[in-house]
Amino acid sequence: MNRIRQLFGIKYPIIQGGMVWCSGWELASAVSNSGGLGLIGAGSMYSDVLREHIIKCKKATNMPFGVNLPLLYANIDEHIKVIIEEEVKIVFTSAGNPKIYTSKLQDHGIKVVHVIANKKFAIKCVESGVDAIVAEGFEAGGHNGIEELTTMCLIPLISKEVDLPIIAAGGISSGNSMLAAFSLGAEGIQMGSRFVASKECSAHINFKSKVIDSDDNETELTLKELTAVRLMKNDFFYQIKDAYSKNASVIELKKILGKGRAKKGMFEGDLKNGELEIGQVSALLDDILPVSEIMSQIILEYEEAVLRINKFKI
Amino acid sequence: MNRIRQLFGIKYPIIQGGMVWCSGWELASAVSNSGGLGLIGAGSMYSDVLREHIIKCKKATNMPFGVNLPLLYANIDEHIKVIIEEEVKIVFTSAGNPKIYTSKLQDHGIKVVHVIANKKFAIKCVESGVDAIVAEGFEAGGHNGIEELTTMCLIPLISKEVDLPIIAAGGISSGNSMLAAFSLGAEGIQMGSRFVASKECSAHINFKSKVIDSDDNETELTLKELTAVRLMKNDFFYQIKDAYSKNASVIELKKILGKGRAKKGMFEGDLKNGELEIGQVSALLDDILPVSEIMSQIILEYEEAVLRINKFKI
Repeated sequence: MNRIRQLFGIKYPIIQGGMVWCSGWELASAVSNSGGLGLIGAGSMYSDVLREHIIKCKKATNMPFGVNLPLLYANIDEHIKVIIEEEVKIVFTSAGNPKIYTSKLQDHGIKVVHVIANKKFAIKCVESGVDAIVAEGFEAGGHNGIEELTTMCLIPLISKEVDLPIIAAGGISSGNSMLAAFSLGAEGIQMGSRFVASKECSAHINFKSKVIDSDDNETELTLKELTAVRLMKNDFFYQIKDAYSKNASVIELKKILGKGRAKKGMFEGDLKNGELEIGQVSALLDDILPVSEIMSQIILEYEEAVLRINKFKI
Repeated sequence: MNRIRQLFGIKYPIIQGGMVWCSGWELASAVSNSGGLGLIGAGSMYSDVLREHIIKCKKATNMPFGVNLPLLYANIDEHIKVIIEEEVKIVFTSAGNPKIYTSKLQDHGIKVVHVIANKKFAIKCVESGVDAIVAEGFEAGGHNGIEELTTMCLIPLISKEVDLPIIAAGGISSGNSMLAAFSLGAEGIQMGSRFVASKECSAHINFKSKVIDSDDNETELTLKELTAVRLMKNDFFYQIKDAYSKNASVIELKKILGKGRAKKGMFEGDLKNGELEIGQVSALLDDILPVSEIMSQIILEYEEAVLRINKFKI
């Protein structure tokens, strides 16, 4: 029995993280068509763009897919209207309070999953009646919690605390790490970075190439005073770092960040001045593959890892 | 086959981290007598004290045990002399360059393991001819790397890079997390925090109680400009934090740290003014147990976790 597979009606408990500028209908439908759960990342979309992606995704797959909805965005109510009108069945919410929208979405037959990074929010999820939790560790790319709890510590902590099915996120890119996540108590995994380095990802090729070329000391969690985010260390990152060393205020940090940085970096491929959100696990990625190959590699690796563990008597 | 068990001649590939003020002969011998590998933490000992602990440990167990030797300490040559004279068979070195002492120790029939936190030092370990590597993630307590690579990312990264047997450290306190570490490619685990909360640990009861009472937002990696260390957030920690917010220099930070802070906190039990080194995983610990119980719990949990994984068909 696996509650995550049952909840979504999917073949493999592998979820593609909803990512700004990286996960449109092409990536989401490819993941769903390969037996996982694809998510359209609504965080970088206007509501009419989101509607377009949902419509295209419905045409591209008959399998379940969902939308990732960061609750901190200004046009949130409009997004929710589109999601309900287009009869999306699965929504992953993040970066906000799950109490506000969960029951509204569920009233329309939508399964709601909320992303958390500590115990306090896991308990809020239970109180809000969400259907599952994504527990995202410190090593994850993009927006993240400020407590710095790693996947290795967070998953056992949350699974001890709540009975809800848990999807592990952060540091997962292979069958081995999927097995590790299940060992820790998760029933599903969510991968972002691995799917950035895919053919179907909508990111600029410059960004994808940078991701697969990167080494083990090239990301850092920063901007905790605004919204904590794990970034690649490029010129823009060092500009922030420099501002910190001069005790920059929140207003100054916001000014440096400006508008459209993420689009500039990840979508337009400006590796110098753009914001490049990626996980620590990028150090492990070497190739840009079609989603179907990524999925079958992970399943194969997972099966091999289980065999290896069974041989490995302690 | 498990190379870690073979290398040390131990029953279980479970190693107790060598910890300042926490791991004397009593803890080390208890772990070794329970089928793991106990390590005497030489970092907080004068050489004559280290000799005394080694002699007592030899009396307390016929099983293999070792010494953990942070290479940054001033009295390192004297320590090595004692280790060789007392015919210790296993040494874990850390916080320094493995090239300097590895062959000297190996010439005396000593197995040498070095602790690393990134790829660069893993390669140095290979070049130095060490017998195994401890790969320690960001979540680990005490001294740590500055790259912030978590166990979930670090273990696959290192096992992809080197053929040496890997001992995973950081975030491991249970049979579930042991299975996760093996899934990621480790052949052994090292646990520190779990053994702090043991009867045989030499830490003050105040510290042990604080560890098992702590929640999920109570440690942080700090003092990267001196030697990065994961600490509990107490008055002393906030004093450092405050100094950082005022752009304190390295000299000022050293002055705040002063001398004997770790002893004051962990050994004398001054929870306010002492340095309390512990891992993130402390949030998961609820009880102070005899080492033999900790060990049998972990083995049992591990076996249950393997059964669970085998039932869990994807």
